Amino acid sequence: MSAERPAPLTFYFDFISPYAYLGWTQIHALAERHGREVEPCAILFAALLDANATKGPAEIPSKRTYVFKDCVRSAAVLGVPFRPPPSHPFNPLLGLRVASAATAANDRRRAIDALYRAAWADGRGITDPAVVSDVLSAADLDGPGLVDRASSAEIKTRVKDQTARALEQGVFGVPTIIADGELFWGLDSLPHVERRLAGRDPWTPAISAAFIDLPASAQRPGSRRGA
Amino acid sequence: MSAERPAPLTFYFDFISPYAYLGWTQIHALAERHGREVEPCAILFAALLDANATKGPAEIPSKRTYVFKDCVRSAAVLGVPFRPPPSHPFNPLLGLRVASAATAANDRRRAIDALYRAAWADGRGITDPAVVSDVLSAADLDGPGLVDRASSAEIKTRVKDQTARALEQGVFGVPTIIADGELFWGLDSLPHVERRLAGRDPWTPAISAAFIDLPASAQRPGSRRGA
Repeated sequence: MSAERPAPLTFYFDFISPYAYLGWTQIHALAERHGREVEPCAILFAALLDANATKGPAEIPSKRTYVFKDCVRSAAVLGVPFRPPPSHPFNPLLGLRVASAATAANDRRRAIDALYRAAWADGRGITDPAVVSDVLSAADLDGPGLVDRASSAEIKTRVKDQTARALEQGVFGVPTIIADGELFWGLDSLPHVERRLAGRDPWTPAISAAFIDLPASAQRPGSRRGA
Repeated sequence: MSAERPAPLTFYFDFISPYAYLGWTQIHALAERHGREVEPCAILFAALLDANATKGPAEIPSKRTYVFKDCVRSAAVLGVPFRPPPSHPFNPLLGLRVASAATAANDRRRAIDALYRAAWADGRGITDPAVVSDVLSAADLDGPGLVDRASSAEIKTRVKDQTARALEQGVFGVPTIIADGELFWGLDSLPHVERRLAGRDPWTPAISAAFIDLPASAQRPGSRRGA
């Protein structure tokens, strides 16, 4: 008998989300505690919003203000650096493509680390190709090569395909962690992921069926339901 | 010198939200640990969504499924009962009005306790006036009187005014806790509320200004920003 390697945790992220940044700072230690690898997967959060015809937190002024405060607080509790990028929302596509262009698992993790630091910890931002190249090179990666590859049709398609696959799996926000086929959303879901991996998830399919089959008896007038 | 009584915590809620239910099961013990009272305030979550032209979790199919699972998990961790109402979304107005018709603070807390149990713990639901009357009477309240008063113009207006005041304060979801003028949203914000009350809130206005004044450099094509 050979010991089967347990499946990696898929970590769906977009650099635009500060919660995905905070989640990224925690997910590797969590995975290691349970003998798992992390498979990071860059997706375009805006495409999830489009598909669900809804708004992101940064598109509702009072929520935008609150979310930043909440992240400042959560970052302090976690003990990780947290500073604003030069602008927000910003276009995350260059970052997402670079993260998807780095093929070796180790390179990809280092690229994402470096990009997240530039976006949410040291204030440099990740929208300028020259800055991104510099940030990657400083992390011992081939900055110019990765930035160049990021603009190829292959990599552009890869990010689109990753986003489409996430939508098929029911992903509606970032960060989302898929653990053995089960979806967990948000920084605050990490303790639930951990219980799941430890075999102590209180959710059971029998419980869930009662909720999923629940009929609706009210609907907002004029609400745009579904996509 | 007289010892000033510290301000109560405002707890904005709607019975439609399972997170507000879970928050309600925790807020009194949290407040008591810091010598605070709780001022519950019933508001219509759907009106917040309308004002922000956005969708609630139950209006995005994949998010609706996830939120129920997340609540089952959180309820298990908190050790509180959690079962689905007969339908969801349901019309919460009768419950919100009854909760706003009970004037004495103690009666209001008991009424909200009873309504939340009926909505999210014992499966009875709170849309049928006869059931609601029964649920209140079983909690030693004047069920028929409260249900009757709930349909008065005064109480209908009161719920509208409470919702309008919440919107003015920047409330965008439930549960929201206002602690000394500071807004906290969601079940997962309770540890932040607790740190705030203990004088250990890591957020400072100087930090926040950097985020609030942050310019945007990207916007989704066709996104409906603002209200």
